[in-house]
Amino acid sequence: MDTYFFYPDLELGQQITLPEEEAKHLKTLRVKEGDFLDIVNGKGILAKGKVLSPNIKNSLIEITQIMDTEAKRPFYIHIAVAATKSSDRIEWFLEKAIEIGIDEISFIETSRSEYNNLKADRLVKKSIAAIKQSLRATLPRINPPKEFKDFIKKYHSDRKNQTKHGEETLEIQRFIAYTPTDTTAVLENCATKNAYYLVMIGSEGGFSPEEVHQAQQSGFECVSLGEYRLRTETAALYSCMALNSINRIS
Amino acid sequence: MDTYFFYPDLELGQQITLPEEEAKHLKTLRVKEGDFLDIVNGKGILAKGKVLSPNIKNSLIEITQIMDTEAKRPFYIHIAVAATKSSDRIEWFLEKAIEIGIDEISFIETSRSEYNNLKADRLVKKSIAAIKQSLRATLPRINPPKEFKDFIKKYHSDRKNQTKHGEETLEIQRFIAYTPTDTTAVLENCATKNAYYLVMIGSEGGFSPEEVHQAQQSGFECVSLGEYRLRTETAALYSCMALNSINRIS
Repeated sequence: MDTYFFYPDLELGQQITLPEEEAKHLKTLRVKEGDFLDIVNGKGILAKGKVLSPNIKNSLIEITQIMDTEAKRPFYIHIAVAATKSSDRIEWFLEKAIEIGIDEISFIETSRSEYNNLKADRLVKKSIAAIKQSLRATLPRINPPKEFKDFIKKYHSDRKNQTKHGEETLEIQRFIAYTPTDTTAVLENCATKNAYYLVMIGSEGGFSPEEVHQAQQSGFECVSLGEYRLRTETAALYSCMALNSINRIS
Repeated sequence: MDTYFFYPDLELGQQITLPEEEAKHLKTLRVKEGDFLDIVNGKGILAKGKVLSPNIKNSLIEITQIMDTEAKRPFYIHIAVAATKSSDRIEWFLEKAIEIGIDEISFIETSRSEYNNLKADRLVKKSIAAIKQSLRATLPRINPPKEFKDFIKKYHSDRKNQTKHGEETLEIQRFIAYTPTDTTAVLENCATKNAYYLVMIGSEGGFSPEEVHQAQQSGFECVSLGEYRLRTETAALYSCMALNSINRIS
């Protein structure tokens, strides 16, 4: 079946009842008793489930097979973005970034970022829809909003410069996106393949000079995303796509 | 002023009256008589205009200076995308692609694309808003929908393989995006710098095998946009961003 279902905990032999919101797809897809479903848990596991009852209010699916967990890519993309006034823009960034491939998303409160009460549950719902859409088994990690100062302190280069990612040990590369007059320092030239990337994206107004300075003191490298002025969510998505691109170039 | 106004025809010394929709920004920006505006015509020209009257219903601006036209980039990106059922998705692709940099957009009717009556005037409005937002002077070329067969006939490799772009002569590189089992033929590896790129993006269902075959016969190279399944507008935007990325790598 070319559709994925989502259930957070999957164990072989276990019988699960899908929440109605998931189960309603059983009807639209005309699933019958005895059919098999593909179910992901958002933690890299894809399972086969045999439908014992396709009843929406009270479905019953038995997990008959646990397939290999999704292979980890040899790099890790962590985008830290200043919240925008409109949650829609953050939500579509999330949807698109997941489709292309993102591992972790943080939200930072900068001196110029606008107030935004991001609904964590909505973001999770969007993420689940996106991994199902792109036939993926892993949800990105989504961190709650953090003050800019606290964020750069947490990721200060003095603390660590390498991190484990599955079998691999990846070098941590820290970037802060801003619009320099010198556009040679573009992200594509500063980032190298197979690393842990942390990119900070400011709000429409960009980062303040003090913030840029503090970030540099914390080991972040200033990079340009090109010669044009980008909206916050465009800049965030562009950096995610560009990092995927440089890792695809052989 | 960090905002652009739009007026299609700009000539030195000429006096123009902005359409009310544009003129209303004079009020929000508190523009006074004697102030100067930055005005773009969407064809690469940025002009200075002196405000003789900031009246919304009957504004009067004199063009006092024509600045250098926007420098042409040494490459050209033309994305041909199958229309999606929801126009929103096409419209945001348009907005984001313009922010990052796109030269031409075509819409193709494929065997699996859904009916969509794209509103040309809405697309133009979106484009104007996007170039103003990203402080640009040039609108992309937007072509009306075309049957897939007619489209590949028009761009058949037998017809031409080079094209003029400003001073430059660019090689034409034709691609059709599909999801092959072999993901080594990714767009980033098949496209080379400083060329005219034409990338065809199918609808959710992708292109039919016949369409892929016909495209190959017409000189289009099959490329992958990565291992994941992408929505139409995500694939279109990704290919646009990836082509910008490879041209930024020094």
